[in-house]
Amino acid sequence: MRLAAYDDRATLVVGADDVRGIDVAIASEGRFGPGLTEVYDDWAAFRVWASGRDAAAADTFPIDRAHLGAPSPRPRQVLAVGLNYDEHAAESGFESPTDLPPVFTKYISSFSGPDTTVTIPPGGNVDWEVELVVVIGREASGVDAAHGWDHVAGLTVGQDLSERVSQLRGPAPQFGLGKSFPGFAPQGPWLVTPEEFDDRDDLELGCAIDGERVQEGRTRELIFSIPKLIAGLSSTVTLYPGDVIFTGTPAGVGAGRTPPRFLSPGQTLTSWVTGIGELHQTFV
Amino acid sequence: MRLAAYDDRATLVVGADDVRGIDVAIASEGRFGPGLTEVYDDWAAFRVWASGRDAAAADTFPIDRAHLGAPSPRPRQVLAVGLNYDEHAAESGFESPTDLPPVFTKYISSFSGPDTTVTIPPGGNVDWEVELVVVIGREASGVDAAHGWDHVAGLTVGQDLSERVSQLRGPAPQFGLGKSFPGFAPQGPWLVTPEEFDDRDDLELGCAIDGERVQEGRTRELIFSIPKLIAGLSSTVTLYPGDVIFTGTPAGVGAGRTPPRFLSPGQTLTSWVTGIGELHQTFV
Repeated sequence: MRLAAYDDRATLVVGADDVRGIDVAIASEGRFGPGLTEVYDDWAAFRVWASGRDAAAADTFPIDRAHLGAPSPRPRQVLAVGLNYDEHAAESGFESPTDLPPVFTKYISSFSGPDTTVTIPPGGNVDWEVELVVVIGREASGVDAAHGWDHVAGLTVGQDLSERVSQLRGPAPQFGLGKSFPGFAPQGPWLVTPEEFDDRDDLELGCAIDGERVQEGRTRELIFSIPKLIAGLSSTVTLYPGDVIFTGTPAGVGAGRTPPRFLSPGQTLTSWVTGIGELHQTFV
Repeated sequence: MRLAAYDDRATLVVGADDVRGIDVAIASEGRFGPGLTEVYDDWAAFRVWASGRDAAAADTFPIDRAHLGAPSPRPRQVLAVGLNYDEHAAESGFESPTDLPPVFTKYISSFSGPDTTVTIPPGGNVDWEVELVVVIGREASGVDAAHGWDHVAGLTVGQDLSERVSQLRGPAPQFGLGKSFPGFAPQGPWLVTPEEFDDRDDLELGCAIDGERVQEGRTRELIFSIPKLIAGLSSTVTLYPGDVIFTGTPAGVGAGRTPPRFLSPGQTLTSWVTGIGELHQTFV
């Protein structure tokens, strides 16, 4: 199942090339939605309802990607994980984490849908970090890794865009603010539920600048897999339905290059996770 | 005006010694509330309505503090500021920030009301950090400091309880998770609007363990004052109504002592901001 935020309304996505939408609130006669938050808060019942939907029988409308937002547009909590691939930790000049990776937030004023224009802050060094993003579907507190996937609603593509000057500024650098300029957390194009993947633990992801591939990785290379992240995070915080986890980026960011390389006005960044879809950001 | 979350319902607080409440949704006949989020989202109109309330004419009920929650229980964003008093930066072994202080989050699963019991995590070194907490009342993006106060709904007392082992763990320590164990963000007892203070820029705050004062400070000593924080933060993120800003702690934390000192089971921590009220946390 694929689920999108279309003009902030929960929308089932159907079709392959000719992608179309079903408005959840209308199709469920008000039982679910209209927003995504309400759907995640009632996720188990929603899944049962959605599995019984006959797309052929429902009113569908053509999906215009400009109307898509982040699949969980107003989470209670955003947990972003750093240094979760060995090669990326090394290129960043850090040792790989052994206990739990560093966890910061991206503030939701930085959230956007999949296709956007992003302004480079004055004097900023804006870097790319393609990531698999997890949305929580069931509250998790003290969950063990064996049951981690049970708490996942689905997966989407995220870009953890990062302004490196402010990210690393000051006496005790905290990453959140430098990663939260407007438009710095594009996500989408939709949420894909885990059973849609042949192997949910081994997804291919990457990104390209104007067609040049700059990052490629597979989620089997995550130091802390999705179930381990859910176990580790839920040992401290309670994860709520709709919460968003940015799972970390593979090697290939611009700051790790010699010389460092950052995004320039006019460039377009395409980010993907195979089996989910693409994001497109043009920089100005 | 004082505003509380009473069983998650927006509640005006009236009276001095015999503190009583007025349920906002009932008194406004559904115009405002029932939750705090809805009140902050309509803050300007709410202030006009609340200023016209005659407490003597309204139904009031006795406030039982056990029913109080954090005055903004479900903010979209929580911005916690570190190293914002010179003496605290020094005792923490850091230089004072010159551009903007480090900004991290406290996850809202750590939020609680003013009077609670807090469990010390196994092996944890739990430290105290009394702070003045700001709740936003009007969206702020690119605001200059001269207009910072215009975006403040009010002020409350917060404890930024911090587990120092996990806060400082790993290759690139990020503070949020170690400051977000259950009950680590008590706030309250209520929000006080800025005009209630003789000098909103110079409030006295402190905390005591079993009656022994361990922190004392004044907010005029903030390196980045409330208006400067709102200007600095809103230059990157958009601050939304209900957003919570922990403004930093004065000197006197346990980690800065020789030898370091942390909270023990059975101890009670009392935290205050003069003119607002007290928090009481007992540790187990």
